Amino acid sequence: MRARAFNSLFFFFTFILVSQSISSFHPLDPLTASEIKTIQHTIKSSHLGSTKNLTFQYVGLNDPDKRTLLSWLSNQSKTPLPRRAFIIARLENQTHEIIIDIKGNFIVSDRIYNGYGYPTPTSAEREEASSLPFTYPSFIESVTKRGLDMTQVVCHAYSVGWFGEEREGKRMAKISCNYRGGTDNFFMRPLEGVTVTVDLDAMAILGYYDRIRVPMPKAEGTDYRASKQKPPFAKRTNGMTVVQPHGRSFTIDGHMIRWANWAFHLGFDARVGPIISLASTYDPNKDEYRSILYRGYISELFVPYMDLAEEWYYKTFFDCGEYGFRLSAVPLEPTTDCPSNAVFIDVYVADQSSNPVKMSNIFCVFERAAGNIMWRHTETGIPGKVVREVRADVSLVVRMVAAVGNYDYVVDWEFKQSGSIKVVVGLTGILEVKGVPYTHTNQIRENVYGTLLAENTTGVNHDHFLTYYLDMDIDGQDNSFIKAKMQTATSILSDDDYPQIRGAYSKYQLMVTPYNRSEKWASGVYTDQSHGDDTLAVWSQRNRDIQNRDIVLWYTVGFHHISSQEDFPVMPTLTGGFELRPSNFFDSNPELKVMPSKPVHWPNCTFRP
Amino acid sequence: MRARAFNSLFFFFTFILVSQSISSFHPLDPLTASEIKTIQHTIKSSHLGSTKNLTFQYVGLNDPDKRTLLSWLSNQSKTPLPRRAFIIARLENQTHEIIIDIKGNFIVSDRIYNGYGYPTPTSAEREEASSLPFTYPSFIESVTKRGLDMTQVVCHAYSVGWFGEEREGKRMAKISCNYRGGTDNFFMRPLEGVTVTVDLDAMAILGYYDRIRVPMPKAEGTDYRASKQKPPFAKRTNGMTVVQPHGRSFTIDGHMIRWANWAFHLGFDARVGPIISLASTYDPNKDEYRSILYRGYISELFVPYMDLAEEWYYKTFFDCGEYGFRLSAVPLEPTTDCPSNAVFIDVYVADQSSNPVKMSNIFCVFERAAGNIMWRHTETGIPGKVVREVRADVSLVVRMVAAVGNYDYVVDWEFKQSGSIKVVVGLTGILEVKGVPYTHTNQIRENVYGTLLAENTTGVNHDHFLTYYLDMDIDGQDNSFIKAKMQTATSILSDDDYPQIRGAYSKYQLMVTPYNRSEKWASGVYTDQSHGDDTLAVWSQRNRDIQNRDIVLWYTVGFHHISSQEDFPVMPTLTGGFELRPSNFFDSNPELKVMPSKPVHWPNCTFRP
Repeated sequence: MRARAFNSLFFFFTFILVSQSISSFHPLDPLTASEIKTIQHTIKSSHLGSTKNLTFQYVGLNDPDKRTLLSWLSNQSKTPLPRRAFIIARLENQTHEIIIDIKGNFIVSDRIYNGYGYPTPTSAEREEASSLPFTYPSFIESVTKRGLDMTQVVCHAYSVGWFGEEREGKRMAKISCNYRGGTDNFFMRPLEGVTVTVDLDAMAILGYYDRIRVPMPKAEGTDYRASKQKPPFAKRTNGMTVVQPHGRSFTIDGHMIRWANWAFHLGFDARVGPIISLASTYDPNKDEYRSILYRGYISELFVPYMDLAEEWYYKTFFDCGEYGFRLSAVPLEPTTDCPSNAVFIDVYVADQSSNPVKMSNIFCVFERAAGNIMWRHTETGIPGKVVREVRADVSLVVRMVAAVGNYDYVVDWEFKQSGSIKVVVGLTGILEVKGVPYTHTNQIRENVYGTLLAENTTGVNHDHFLTYYLDMDIDGQDNSFIKAKMQTATSILSDDDYPQIRGAYSKYQLMVTPYNRSEKWASGVYTDQSHGDDTLAVWSQRNRDIQNRDIVLWYTVGFHHISSQEDFPVMPTLTGGFELRPSNFFDSNPELKVMPSKPVHWPNCTFRP
Repeated sequence: MRARAFNSLFFFFTFILVSQSISSFHPLDPLTASEIKTIQHTIKSSHLGSTKNLTFQYVGLNDPDKRTLLSWLSNQSKTPLPRRAFIIARLENQTHEIIIDIKGNFIVSDRIYNGYGYPTPTSAEREEASSLPFTYPSFIESVTKRGLDMTQVVCHAYSVGWFGEEREGKRMAKISCNYRGGTDNFFMRPLEGVTVTVDLDAMAILGYYDRIRVPMPKAEGTDYRASKQKPPFAKRTNGMTVVQPHGRSFTIDGHMIRWANWAFHLGFDARVGPIISLASTYDPNKDEYRSILYRGYISELFVPYMDLAEEWYYKTFFDCGEYGFRLSAVPLEPTTDCPSNAVFIDVYVADQSSNPVKMSNIFCVFERAAGNIMWRHTETGIPGKVVREVRADVSLVVRMVAAVGNYDYVVDWEFKQSGSIKVVVGLTGILEVKGVPYTHTNQIRENVYGTLLAENTTGVNHDHFLTYYLDMDIDGQDNSFIKAKMQTATSILSDDDYPQIRGAYSKYQLMVTPYNRSEKWASGVYTDQSHGDDTLAVWSQRNRDIQNRDIVLWYTVGFHHISSQEDFPVMPTLTGGFELRPSNFFDSNPELKVMPSKPVHWPNCTFRP
């Protein structure tokens, strides 16, 4: 079917159906707790289950075939679609790709992957790896000789990247540590110069060095909590809040969200976080729903640091493929992370044994009235008459926050009544800083690859490249791309630099490929220690036809982050993004048909401070 | 003085003073109603007053000398500063530049300007010029032969530009007309092909042509008012509003506005609209106010259209210098133009006889909580402990709307607690459309310089270049400019095109000049019919020292507007802007010292719909 079959009749039918059932099932819904448990059971009771060291590295929905799904959606009375899961597991030091039929409780396929790269390590693996230094005599000596208290040391496992080595056959991580003495903002107190290399399969230390020794940056001034601040404070502002006395204007029906002219499905994936599917917009001129976006999500987040020191050169992180949003998504705090009118949504993920783990308040959804003007005109050109018509702008925001270690990414999808989808990411959290011997910039005689933020502390220069997967289905699947002027904010790394070979797909701000079900993740499936041989950069060179086809846009939002003192000890949010704006899609401005809301008056309130 | 003398003591002193007087006088305050009247009296009772046809083209504050003003502000007990006005008047077909001492009621200087270009026409001149066609037989014939009703024709005067002609000695305007029959959105019904040229001094028609005849576009579908819309409508949303039960957090003391860490002066000028002066921010680390911006405003707004037809080629407007914000600023509508928590401000301007005219609700000031996150971090890296700290973002917005004929510009200055000033402009209102014979794109065989929006209607390609004057005084006057990477969005016109000679200053996104009191307006003082010989492009070639000096940034926000069907019949707001963001200005993130506001609860309200 063409997605324009989502007409308003269908919409209302579904809506009525919902009020009778608690929640409608949708084939794109993420795995439920009981499905995750079923997967565990199916695999453990199979030939694979006899092995003790089986770990589930990725557990997610096996995407339904697109044509099958669209056809099924156009006629929901047919037999339910098969419900399948895609699992990446480690077993006897091998990577298995397993597809499971959930309803049938059977393994559809099991294949061993022999290419470059490894699956995302599990959180349990990271934790175990991070604990190894604490019983390692050389590490204890390094801590002791710095005069530090071992109980105040915290360590974390980082991906090691790939720098042209022949295949070594080992799945590794590097451990670097910080000191939480005197502050909970331990990222500001790096145990600089000390790095531990770990074999993640053997869970054993492979290498260790303690290369340099610099003063530990001060704890003073690093705690960001209100309770730890001393006067003088900023001039305080009074609280303000949003009220909707007539109620919210959106509905959440299972994973389908409907607001104003928009309808879309909100999913969650352990690797990429929020997935917007089947976004369609009601066209008041045509009186029907028209499809816009089949699927949209952040397919990868490449963060190369630009410091050549032994402890730093390897830090070229792929936050989706090497870490995953499953690990980094954090509960949102009402009234601060999301305004008082927000609704919060929980999700379930699988741990490394495929036990379901509930993650609370992972999404919030709220209507935003930011004080902007949707459209207006004052006409003073008619003698003896003034015409003034103004619409205040209201939009719907879906938000998730991923705290990938030190960094907090605020991931927003904003739906506007103009038919636009605005995709915004805010960068905040804590900088990854480096300990240096300097206390003042005038002491610096070498390239420190960054900015001195505080005594003995530099913010290392780095980039963020968020590559969005956007399978646009504008009025159906046959779409073409018309190039308009572009400005590219691309990598500073040279093309033959190994991290850049792995992240080459982020070189262009925009790429277009024909839809291919297997081309989901820009950095490839096995990003950890990948060699860049199976990424969007490679796929896009196949010279396939993209004219009047089912095409996918890959849009990269890039930030060159030269840090400044204002980033210390916590970063003011830095925002970037893009807008998918309709152009000659509607016959006329759809906002014209947005009737003003009923006025809201609050004549009679008491409040408590 | 250096603006850092605005310390917190001074701040509180002023605050207390205010509660005793109604409003504090500031040397940068715009002219008051009585001052405008005084100017009228002073000139009319002088040797200039004997002439009948004296018109005031510009009446504004004569900027105080910057050093004198800063020195005076550092010690307010001294003698008051002289208060002077700068007037541009037309008298016996000559342009006079007059400076008046307002308190002394005398003319300080009177000089005749003999260079290229003319002052901004007055609104009365425009109106009178626009009325001339209605008694002009050829025009009446043109209307009649099109079968149109003369009483439904509306005409407006446009600036004529300059296209390399030798000096013609005539101050002119071109009149083009529209048809309001069947709609109040007359801009969508152009009387295409008809142009009247008027001598503004003689107030007589100089030229007339009726060159082509195309069908009048339909009235149907052009009215943008809610009351004129027919179903189906967009899916309606419920109203929402902002409440501040503890009150607003800003004070307006005369023209000084103080909110959170910010203090600044808000002025109004007949030519450029809002002027932000003496913006300084409280630095909690240093416990003092530090100066940021001496003066900021839109110095010019260049809008060249890209159609070579006889009726269109001349449309290369300079909205500040040729039209002026005095004419275009419109009253803001509560709850739609500005949210319910906004405060509105009136201003006074002079008419062409220097009578004071009150303009109501020209500015609004409001606190914005858009649901964004100021900064946050969730720390999960400490065993057995989660630290989460989030601050919701709140900022202060100062807004004005200029409806320059068909276009509505939403001009925002947003002050953030990060120390940033975000400068945003939204473009909405009505497109200037051209009548064409085509009803469908497949009929078009020629270059129509635009997009077919509806039957017989094209939106003509055009640009908008808003050039901001930004006299930065970061911690005082001696500033330097450090170039970072820039992306330029510059004019498509070639350098030797006459409109581009006049607007050459908008070729670069950023220019830096040393402060010069006379270099206020990027397009020069006399923009109307100017030859481009006295603009920022010329001043910037003088190769003056800008290192460690009092420098001015000129930043151009450019839009290439290729219109689309969604722009019909009223445009969804298109937004652009820039942010002046502190970098190594504060010792650390000033937002760290922003304490959370007291929570707001609303347990006990009744409301009426």
